[in-house]
Amino acid sequence: MTLFRWGDPADAVTLPSGVRDLLSTALGVTGPRPVTGPELPAPAPLPDFPGLDVSAGARLRHATGMSTVDLLTSRSGAVPDAPDGVARPASHDEVLEVLRIAADHRVAVVPHGGRTSVVGGLRALRDGYAGVVALDLSRLVRLVRLDRTSRTATFEAGVTGPRAEQMLAEAGFTLGHFPQSFQYATLGGFAATRSSGQASAGYGRFDQMVVALRAATGAGTLELGRAPQSAAGPDLRQLLLGSEGAFGVITELTLRIRPAREVRYAGWAFPSFDAGMRAVRALAQDGPLPAVLRLSDEAETAVNAATGASADAGGGCLAIVGHLGDADPADRLTEYGGEPLGEEPGKVWEAGRFRAPYLRDALLDAGALAETLETATFWDRLPQTYTAVRDALLGALGDAGTPPIVMCHISHVYETGASLYFTVVAAQAEDPVAQWRAAKTSAGAAIVASGATITHHHGIGRDHRPWYAQEIGPVGAAVLHAVKRALDPAGILNPGILLP
Amino acid sequence: MTLFRWGDPADAVTLPSGVRDLLSTALGVTGPRPVTGPELPAPAPLPDFPGLDVSAGARLRHATGMSTVDLLTSRSGAVPDAPDGVARPASHDEVLEVLRIAADHRVAVVPHGGRTSVVGGLRALRDGYAGVVALDLSRLVRLVRLDRTSRTATFEAGVTGPRAEQMLAEAGFTLGHFPQSFQYATLGGFAATRSSGQASAGYGRFDQMVVALRAATGAGTLELGRAPQSAAGPDLRQLLLGSEGAFGVITELTLRIRPAREVRYAGWAFPSFDAGMRAVRALAQDGPLPAVLRLSDEAETAVNAATGASADAGGGCLAIVGHLGDADPADRLTEYGGEPLGEEPGKVWEAGRFRAPYLRDALLDAGALAETLETATFWDRLPQTYTAVRDALLGALGDAGTPPIVMCHISHVYETGASLYFTVVAAQAEDPVAQWRAAKTSAGAAIVASGATITHHHGIGRDHRPWYAQEIGPVGAAVLHAVKRALDPAGILNPGILLP
Repeated sequence: MTLFRWGDPADAVTLPSGVRDLLSTALGVTGPRPVTGPELPAPAPLPDFPGLDVSAGARLRHATGMSTVDLLTSRSGAVPDAPDGVARPASHDEVLEVLRIAADHRVAVVPHGGRTSVVGGLRALRDGYAGVVALDLSRLVRLVRLDRTSRTATFEAGVTGPRAEQMLAEAGFTLGHFPQSFQYATLGGFAATRSSGQASAGYGRFDQMVVALRAATGAGTLELGRAPQSAAGPDLRQLLLGSEGAFGVITELTLRIRPAREVRYAGWAFPSFDAGMRAVRALAQDGPLPAVLRLSDEAETAVNAATGASADAGGGCLAIVGHLGDADPADRLTEYGGEPLGEEPGKVWEAGRFRAPYLRDALLDAGALAETLETATFWDRLPQTYTAVRDALLGALGDAGTPPIVMCHISHVYETGASLYFTVVAAQAEDPVAQWRAAKTSAGAAIVASGATITHHHGIGRDHRPWYAQEIGPVGAAVLHAVKRALDPAGILNPGILLP
Repeated sequence: MTLFRWGDPADAVTLPSGVRDLLSTALGVTGPRPVTGPELPAPAPLPDFPGLDVSAGARLRHATGMSTVDLLTSRSGAVPDAPDGVARPASHDEVLEVLRIAADHRVAVVPHGGRTSVVGGLRALRDGYAGVVALDLSRLVRLVRLDRTSRTATFEAGVTGPRAEQMLAEAGFTLGHFPQSFQYATLGGFAATRSSGQASAGYGRFDQMVVALRAATGAGTLELGRAPQSAAGPDLRQLLLGSEGAFGVITELTLRIRPAREVRYAGWAFPSFDAGMRAVRALAQDGPLPAVLRLSDEAETAVNAATGASADAGGGCLAIVGHLGDADPADRLTEYGGEPLGEEPGKVWEAGRFRAPYLRDALLDAGALAETLETATFWDRLPQTYTAVRDALLGALGDAGTPPIVMCHISHVYETGASLYFTVVAAQAEDPVAQWRAAKTSAGAAIVASGATITHHHGIGRDHRPWYAQEIGPVGAAVLHAVKRALDPAGILNPGILLP
């Protein structure tokens, strides 16, 4: 990735003039805002970590995650969270060594995978520490074992999504895990944040793929997973999954793999978001469940159609359905009022599935504010949660004088509920970071009040901690702090991240 | 249940004379052993718990679980683990009150559901406590809420399997959870022990049905689960599931439910356990996956056929396959060398599915030792684990002069692995408890050495702790102890259970 922008510069998006016109006429975007080159703070001296690099280039490359707040902050020239250096251990034992040295010298350790966090997962606290070191896992990139009989693959944690798929494809297998961060994020990052991919209906969430793991902690090595499932006490794997580097560093994962199969995409139109919601619920509860199942609300459908990003749905809502060829959900979708739009909308969606972060950069360049947030809850609360979060975003940004476009889709379904993913675009205010934080605060309060979870697949990081505290309550927080003390007695692992 | 026997006396099994002959000729069983009426130890005085009953009858009814060691011990007249009294709280708040009073008076609290533990889950340590109280959840029996939209049901934790199914059936739903303990065990017990039912292939394990839970702990109330799945930190639900009353008392569960459907059973013959294993693996990995999928080894098939308990498989292995009518696995089973045996073997299995514990009582009455143990691992290790555990049991009991019949089946399958369930019958030695403990120790060592889990669905209790310590290692044990200190600071919850 280039500094403070998403992905490969060759894939950068140029906004069509129609979009630029829309930004200025509908949202009042007045044009590009000044960008200041980043100024690194003076580094604290670090002890001799394995593979240590204290160059300005290395520090800048590890300076920030990929939330809109991260990007806006760095565009203003500030990189307050840049580490003092980058350690690149080459093995599990070297990761343990980093943790030992850091504990001895009271250096905060921030594990780095693909740095695609959108919740401040790399913004560790610096106060009270002698320095901050980025623990970069990019040298742990081996496929350790492929077990065709059990259909598992054991990888080191620094392997990226595309590299894992490439190594598996050579043997005819796939993970089937394609989150929007796929091109850059790592398997360790997927695990540490409970990632969920675009084909989660068919392939499950990443946490459901993990059958065993190895983690380096401040108390030593933790190895978990002797069977697909077990009744030997609590499932401790599920305590490391989602631990966001605060309990330990996941160094190796054994993952369920499947034979690679082609996905057949199609677009469907529904007269309303409610009607589409009933249809996707029917597939989730009574099948046949496709591998990919997405439903945009009226606003998202209209905006995507107007900007040429996807098919028109006649004023209704567009669904993208991708199945593996075994059971076609077409009859069920028709039964629930869907109109087939053919393969084209699906192909268009697939071609652009990793494009949204590039589009965000272009929108930020143009002077717009663009960000996403997401939640999940049970089906009976879903319509009310949708309305409450939408109203909160419209209200907060409207009150700030920057009325936004708020779009939403369902992209992860379960028998008992589903996720809601919101995208917001507005004109940047004078202080766009404060502008977004106010909107986010309002949306977070609406999510909690609706009884929904503060995040379905983005994680907690630094940004979600206040609502997370409400979600798990003081007893849940006490459990997390107890585990933290046991696994990170020196308190050096990702301070300020996850724990309420 | 009657005292120290399984279930309803009306369902007691009488051994056919052929079985009695087999026991004496093949195993050297010499006849019934003396049974001594139980002698309750003098009770310690207890503080004023909600719903306290200190009668001898109540103490005896809560004196023991249902492992063979439990039954043998109580048949010898010893009930060393009988509580000093039984508290029957009527609400979550009264459960909290029991925990507060117990902490104040240093009384050990043993949560009781259906008392069907086969791993010493009710044998709490008494040393260092002023007394032991059984916390009986039999008054927490409400269906709190049925949500047809989300397909969830919220139950209090003391509801038994049949009662839950009955309440759901009135609305056309089912949990689909039918472990062998089904008739007596409670939902709270299923959750606290990570139970897995006979239809786990179709309906999942019990832990996969739990979308939300409420627990009373020594630190207060814990409420978890705002969505089917979430990326809000570690999945803390999975820390309470399998906690066996050592972290808190689960008082309420919200469970995924499904429309009730008829299961169509059939029997299949395979030429060998290996051939059958390949077939069930093919169904688990490539489908169609039936709801019930069981495969007996040659020994279990032969013994069941000889005793009229199930169909003959021509010297091979019997599989029982129950599907829900949507996708018949017959073609796949044929492809993998299976021979269809028609519906009858499936109907026979279904009719006798909860009968094994009654049969065990009859075998114990006749002077035989009968017990089961189980494990799970990944497919590639399964054949070797099977051989190692079988050899360990044959060796240990043979060395003791009581050569056993050792039978095995696979009854829970996953894409990446499966369970192995062993049944052992031998003549009782002079000290049958010591005899079984030696065999169990040998089998446990074989399981651990094979890299398998010490239990797929029985739990840890008191009996599995030594191997559990090896399975999760010192770092895993440190995590459990940290959670224990956070949730049970007085250390009164199920002392001696679960924690290594």
